[in-house]
Amino acid sequence: MIKKLKLIAGSLVSLFFLLNMTSTSYAETTVSAEVGFIFNTFLFLVCGFLVMFMAAGFAMLESGMVTSKSVSVICAKNIGLFAISGIMFWLVGYNLAYGIPEGGFIGNFVPWSDGSKLETGYSDGSDWYFQMVFCATTVSIVSGTMAERVKLWPFFLFAAILAGILYPIVMGWQWGGGWLAVRGFSDFAGSTLVHSTGGAAALAGVILLGSRTGRFTKSGTPVPVKPFAASSIPLVTIGVFILWLGWFGFNGGSQLAMGTFNDAVAISKIFINTNLAACGGVFAAAIVTRLMIGRTDVIQMLNGAIGGLVAITAEPLMPSPLAAILIGGVGGVIVIFGTKLLFHFKIDDVVGAIPAHLFSGIWGTLAVPITNPDANFSAQLLGIISINLFVFIVSFIVWALMKNTIGIRLSKEAELKGTDISETGVIAYAIRD
Amino acid sequence: MIKKLKLIAGSLVSLFFLLNMTSTSYAETTVSAEVGFIFNTFLFLVCGFLVMFMAAGFAMLESGMVTSKSVSVICAKNIGLFAISGIMFWLVGYNLAYGIPEGGFIGNFVPWSDGSKLETGYSDGSDWYFQMVFCATTVSIVSGTMAERVKLWPFFLFAAILAGILYPIVMGWQWGGGWLAVRGFSDFAGSTLVHSTGGAAALAGVILLGSRTGRFTKSGTPVPVKPFAASSIPLVTIGVFILWLGWFGFNGGSQLAMGTFNDAVAISKIFINTNLAACGGVFAAAIVTRLMIGRTDVIQMLNGAIGGLVAITAEPLMPSPLAAILIGGVGGVIVIFGTKLLFHFKIDDVVGAIPAHLFSGIWGTLAVPITNPDANFSAQLLGIISINLFVFIVSFIVWALMKNTIGIRLSKEAELKGTDISETGVIAYAIRD
Amino acid sequence: MIKKLKLIAGSLVSLFFLLNMTSTSYAETTVSAEVGFIFNTFLFLVCGFLVMFMAAGFAMLESGMVTSKSVSVICAKNIGLFAISGIMFWLVGYNLAYGIPEGGFIGNFVPWSDGSKLETGYSDGSDWYFQMVFCATTVSIVSGTMAERVKLWPFFLFAAILAGILYPIVMGWQWGGGWLAVRGFSDFAGSTLVHSTGGAAALAGVILLGSRTGRFTKSGTPVPVKPFAASSIPLVTIGVFILWLGWFGFNGGSQLAMGTFNDAVAISKIFINTNLAACGGVFAAAIVTRLMIGRTDVIQMLNGAIGGLVAITAEPLMPSPLAAILIGGVGGVIVIFGTKLLFHFKIDDVVGAIPAHLFSGIWGTLAVPITNPDANFSAQLLGIISINLFVFIVSFIVWALMKNTIGIRLSKEAELKGTDISETGVIAYAIRD
Repeated sequence: MIKKLKLIAGSLVSLFFLLNMTSTSYAETTVSAEVGFIFNTFLFLVCGFLVMFMAAGFAMLESGMVTSKSVSVICAKNIGLFAISGIMFWLVGYNLAYGIPEGGFIGNFVPWSDGSKLETGYSDGSDWYFQMVFCATTVSIVSGTMAERVKLWPFFLFAAILAGILYPIVMGWQWGGGWLAVRGFSDFAGSTLVHSTGGAAALAGVILLGSRTGRFTKSGTPVPVKPFAASSIPLVTIGVFILWLGWFGFNGGSQLAMGTFNDAVAISKIFINTNLAACGGVFAAAIVTRLMIGRTDVIQMLNGAIGGLVAITAEPLMPSPLAAILIGGVGGVIVIFGTKLLFHFKIDDVVGAIPAHLFSGIWGTLAVPITNPDANFSAQLLGIISINLFVFIVSFIVWALMKNTIGIRLSKEAELKGTDISETGVIAYAIRD
Repeated sequence: MIKKLKLIAGSLVSLFFLLNMTSTSYAETTVSAEVGFIFNTFLFLVCGFLVMFMAAGFAMLESGMVTSKSVSVICAKNIGLFAISGIMFWLVGYNLAYGIPEGGFIGNFVPWSDGSKLETGYSDGSDWYFQMVFCATTVSIVSGTMAERVKLWPFFLFAAILAGILYPIVMGWQWGGGWLAVRGFSDFAGSTLVHSTGGAAALAGVILLGSRTGRFTKSGTPVPVKPFAASSIPLVTIGVFILWLGWFGFNGGSQLAMGTFNDAVAISKIFINTNLAACGGVFAAAIVTRLMIGRTDVIQMLNGAIGGLVAITAEPLMPSPLAAILIGGVGGVIVIFGTKLLFHFKIDDVVGAIPAHLFSGIWGTLAVPITNPDANFSAQLLGIISINLFVFIVSFIVWALMKNTIGIRLSKEAELKGTDISETGVIAYAIRD
Repeated sequence: MIKKLKLIAGSLVSLFFLLNMTSTSYAETTVSAEVGFIFNTFLFLVCGFLVMFMAAGFAMLESGMVTSKSVSVICAKNIGLFAISGIMFWLVGYNLAYGIPEGGFIGNFVPWSDGSKLETGYSDGSDWYFQMVFCATTVSIVSGTMAERVKLWPFFLFAAILAGILYPIVMGWQWGGGWLAVRGFSDFAGSTLVHSTGGAAALAGVILLGSRTGRFTKSGTPVPVKPFAASSIPLVTIGVFILWLGWFGFNGGSQLAMGTFNDAVAISKIFINTNLAACGGVFAAAIVTRLMIGRTDVIQMLNGAIGGLVAITAEPLMPSPLAAILIGGVGGVIVIFGTKLLFHFKIDDVVGAIPAHLFSGIWGTLAVPITNPDANFSAQLLGIISINLFVFIVSFIVWALMKNTIGIRLSKEAELKGTDISETGVIAYAIRD
């Protein structure tokens, strides 16, 4: 199996190699240390606020995708998890990731504090901010999958654990210079570290939680979509556009520096590849759904954008434009068939986060060696398996512990009334003619 | 009373002092004057466009909070007041604030014009732009409180006076180097100057305007929320996320410079504290409403974010992360109890702007000396009282004059039909299955 | 006729000349080549992501303006056309525009590739990104006009032709240094190149497509607005605010450089004029509708902002603040009367894109010589006529070819059901109490 995959990957390498850009470079920088420091810091802050805004994108995507009786609670979840992530990533997360010894497994439990030095090349605070919004993104991925039947406060508790401990640990493995980094794993901006992590945590939770009441017939097919219709397509759309916008910060900022000619050129390439991968994802989904079901499924187009963006995230710098379109296009197709796969197993992922973030994340990470000669297929597999297994297993344990103590699922009565009435008491759309 | 407050403040100082970061600094800058000029100008423009976007945040927050028969007019108000603010702040506002003599009370009535010089350190136009969006923010705060029964054009007239005259005057007192600045008042980005000013103007207006018909029973309790239900929680949510995003520009840009190591480090700290204060506000509101009413009130969580953000605005640089969380948390709690206080006095603030902006603004301004040793409690009180009284009294006079001439309140018939039909003739949500 | 217009323009010149700012300038730059390169590249990326976000603005504006049975398809169109534009502009567009010989008519069909050099002053990729989002904006303008009855895939096909061929050709004529540029045509950020181009393409399409079933009575008046009511005013509002925000990038980035004192000052002026023109457009529309129909038409205020922004786009640098307000104000008024004009000809432009983009674009381009002494009225007329005629005629041919082959209009049955059901099978708003 691995051999076959290697063979396929090999052929793809040959195909894509022809398409790669020749990389530009400029000998030595003439930018002074302080000017470089300001540029790098500003890059983190600007890209950071773009990624911060992705929290709004997830909130809108999820608000639009759930039924109209569970929208207020999705909003509460999204604003709540963003707040939790900020606090936890300061209190423990940052140094749990970056306090890791070289090649190690875990950092320390010291709260973050500012120790900016000119020599670091950027302000400590700007780095914290940029990494914090990545952490929050990871948690955002979980909130939609389990919508409409999970209890709010157990979700918040899991969010705190994921933001403060789980994500920082895997983050340290790679970006903190831990054991995965020294094995040669390559994940530029987090197809696996962020997106698969979020998706794997959601998968563990949703398996334990079960599907929404009435979602699947006994024979296993999902019931006609009507009673589970998405509440607002324009909200999903603005959500996806906000995520697309934020992704320029997500991938562009992951260059981590802007103070030289080379960095400025690299960030520009990353912007382009990020955009083209999303384009590929949208169009692959449009064409495939049109051919398969005779209608152009707008929801799959929108999710296809996310699939394409997640796929390019592991390596947004090296691919040629054509390679980026193809990597993203495959990501978009994976979303469609991943959705079918979950249906097959009666896994009820309300917003399609598992296909878009977990499955496309795996694809994107596997695809890195196709365009980046410094990466290798075995190290990629190692990273994908170790991170996803670790996150899935620990998440499963945490959700299981909560299930057997405080409970994670609303009563059937509360679910049928809708989470908005039972959990927050605020109906989402009070529209009267 | 003041003595007691001083005592409390003193204890808090001791508590927070332990938590303050040691501040980083880098001897002398090596950045050339022109490069510094470009950095500073770009900071104003980038932070300025973030603050500009807050206008959209207020528009969405308010659209979501009013009932569905008053949404179109809220949109008209918000786009209209932003247009008015831009024109008025050019025509009179800027020089009314910045043309003030040192220690003085008022500037001059000359329209702004560009006189950029390298020595100033940033382009005149970028400063105008950044200050203009602050002015517009102040006016935005007023529009929601009086919704659903105020006449549109009297509101526009008040907006012109607030944007062109009232706000610039108090702005000049402090940021123009006027009499408050020389007394040692400290308000980094405008907890009082912007947020309390907007809140005090709204309070004056709403007292004269009266509550919505049927809002309070004779015994004084608000009627069950149903007939006054917020029209769209996801719109409130995206509004709050946009405001949160914009606040990085609001507070970060108020550092006023980015052309040195020290400035870059400071802006990063400001981003972090701004974020953590909002986190604190969200969570304080979530916990308090959960304990008080047994449900997690999503509207109060969203308003709690605003309360936290307003509270940190007076001093986003000096607090430690923990102090920022606590300052913001108190802001969030103030929103909840402030809302109850207004109910008690039968003051019908449709969107909760008075608790979030006026009350939390007072708290944030009072809290400055806790973390900033250069500030003192008496000067803070002086600033809070003088600005709020001035704005409240003059606003009251202006609203009263309008009430007794052109009228400020719609007829009962027009109000019951809804402002959308009576004022703009455009229904907001025309949704048919 | 032309003489009369010249006379009017002449008088306006005299009027506005008094109002122009004295321009500031700073002798020679001291910024090193590499630092300048980074500044310029970053300007393109930051302004580029703002313009990218305009795609979301158009999606929301159009979602809110169509009836509730055609919202999902508008979302599909907008995400789809943005994806198409990215791919086509890489595949053929960029070099069709920029590969043009000096004074020539058309470039070459080579896909874009990165050849960044320090001497160019900015990274190739950042320029591609910035130009690509302009291309996508042009296509976005078309999508709303033909809503509710055009077939989805023929629209996508036209989008590909417009993004890949039509827009790049006219772009090359001017910004690529082609034949119009050498004739002295002046269009700073694209009132004609982008906005009129989009509007002219939409006009050609809508003439061939015909109006929505039942839109006009036989006597020619539009039927009462109710059955064609806009589905969501707050979505239109956030759309307009996003466009307003994006326009700072659109016009500001068109300065094309930020690495000197002069450029930084210029960009600031552009931000201010862009803002004030939008303010003028909003208020002109508010006042005119109030006087004309007795109600303040919120839709026309929102469209007025667009009209003002389009008008200032041809020359956002030279006007004084007052001139910017007036140019924008005229743009806002043109939107109102342009809408009436289309009604008169029974042209059913669902979102008002033709008045806002085509008509205001013509006005803005004509107005350039009023404030820019380097421009002249004849060259402006030449550019307006040649670009609009070329785009209109070729678009007409393309739409006509499609009409007579694959068909461009849905069946009457499909139209009455709504495009959401017939084309994508996803209803837009599934809201239940």
